[in-house]
Amino acid sequence: MGKKRVGIVGLGKMGKNMALNLISKKYHVTVYNRSPESTREMARKGAIGKYSFEEFADSLGNRKIIILMVTAGKPVDDIIAGLFPFLSEGDIIIDGGNSFYEDSSRRYEVLKEEGINFIDLGVSGGLEGAKNGASLTIGGDKNIFKKIEFLFRDLAEKNGYGYVGNSGAGHFVKLIHNGIEYAILEAYGEGFEVLSKSEYKFNLKEIAKIWNNGSIIKSNLTELIEKILNKNPELKNTDGIIRGGESGKLAHSIAKKSGVEFDSLKLALRKRKLSEKKQSFSTRLISLLREEFGGHATKEK
Amino acid sequence: MGKKRVGIVGLGKMGKNMALNLISKKYHVTVYNRSPESTREMARKGAIGKYSFEEFADSLGNRKIIILMVTAGKPVDDIIAGLFPFLSEGDIIIDGGNSFYEDSSRRYEVLKEEGINFIDLGVSGGLEGAKNGASLTIGGDKNIFKKIEFLFRDLAEKNGYGYVGNSGAGHFVKLIHNGIEYAILEAYGEGFEVLSKSEYKFNLKEIAKIWNNGSIIKSNLTELIEKILNKNPELKNTDGIIRGGESGKLAHSIAKKSGVEFDSLKLALRKRKLSEKKQSFSTRLISLLREEFGGHATKEK
Repeated sequence: MGKKRVGIVGLGKMGKNMALNLISKKYHVTVYNRSPESTREMARKGAIGKYSFEEFADSLGNRKIIILMVTAGKPVDDIIAGLFPFLSEGDIIIDGGNSFYEDSSRRYEVLKEEGINFIDLGVSGGLEGAKNGASLTIGGDKNIFKKIEFLFRDLAEKNGYGYVGNSGAGHFVKLIHNGIEYAILEAYGEGFEVLSKSEYKFNLKEIAKIWNNGSIIKSNLTELIEKILNKNPELKNTDGIIRGGESGKLAHSIAKKSGVEFDSLKLALRKRKLSEKKQSFSTRLISLLREEFGGHATKEK
Repeated sequence: MGKKRVGIVGLGKMGKNMALNLISKKYHVTVYNRSPESTREMARKGAIGKYSFEEFADSLGNRKIIILMVTAGKPVDDIIAGLFPFLSEGDIIIDGGNSFYEDSSRRYEVLKEEGINFIDLGVSGGLEGAKNGASLTIGGDKNIFKKIEFLFRDLAEKNGYGYVGNSGAGHFVKLIHNGIEYAILEAYGEGFEVLSKSEYKFNLKEIAKIWNNGSIIKSNLTELIEKILNKNPELKNTDGIIRGGESGKLAHSIAKKSGVEFDSLKLALRKRKLSEKKQSFSTRLISLLREEFGGHATKEK
């Protein structure tokens, strides 16, 4: 048997890191990106760079496996439409972005009629996770999941993947993950801001370190906070505007539909919006955290 | 040199576990508790049980080190008053409860005038931490901290302790810790509630497991959530009322004074209050989490 073969469309930071992860695991990774610079960059790093959907699809042989790592919404539909003429029955498209789960179900249905399989993949763990092992929630047909389970195993941290339900389930879970993420970011931001304002003049990185060893509130985020405070105690290099917010809004709309008051998320969304006008220690810390785990911009470009 | 010697007043769950921790590290641990049953219990487990403040203090020799593990507020003052006649210059009282930091500063000042040292100790990590290694933030005179640093090292998880500032600082940090804790409990509770209400009929413990391997929102709390969902997937054995709340209120008053909007905590406090009237998946999960880490009651006694 030859090498395992997979295609990745979308070479943003997450897509690039995922490609590097699979290259390091001896996959043949074919990549395509709207702008060719990133494709060339990845070709230098061991990927097979292709510059049209046709060439891209051709290089994947039969039973293609294609991972989409693009912005949720229209870009996903556009790329599926662009790839479609070059796909055959039995091919598998995996959407690894933060798509709304109902869009994923719709895409699943449309492609199903053409004999093409669609898997929705929630990816958590940020850039580090994409490169070295992510946390993956997978939705779609279980037999398709089984067929390509090797791929998820290779992409994930040990025990960090699972089939969670029918089409849309993987993205549903990912959006709720992001909702929780927004809310806990806000909690840490506010809490550290209180410490920063104290007359005790706390050494915040020392406190983060203490909390990272045995406290109830220890988390992957407190570890990132310690890291940020160590290298950037003044929280420089950010304008303190918390950007993004799309997946949080989607998560909130899911909660509303389910009749659940996801108020902690609602609050975080409100505070994100406010950060455009008024910045604080909290909004700067959250911006830097988002950059640290996701490479999200912390300044106007 | 003989064994290290320490006294503990207050044998609630935290006090007991802290005593067991120090006994396991070959300390002479003298204990006192208002009701004698717990003292007798701990005496059977290797502590030296005493039934009056006088006997208790006598057994600690010169340069006494006494840890108070009692409810914040009046009980702390009462115990200090009870012990006071039997203390001498140079003795050290350590308050390991959730006291308001200004009370700690006041107690420090009063005792200082009598030559008695007072240390405020924020203890995180719940029952498990108290027994096997906690996260400790310490306030007071730095030279006193240095003198008894061995004790904190023995009580803490590796690297999980530190001197954070003048009198009150240890409790200030602990209260803010608790404020963050309340807020992130609320975030996880609401997020898991959305999952629980979904038509996908998610296997929540499987999702918790996936998130606990590589996700951004992984934390000590998500590990406890996985544990709870494994042994009690229906979230039984709780009335869903989130009890407690005192330290969160104190944290919120600190924030207010500092001019910081600790809104995520404010929301969590409001939801706790509401849980008295209306329970939900979220409030049941949070109640069970509080029981899991802190042994807090999840039903009316």
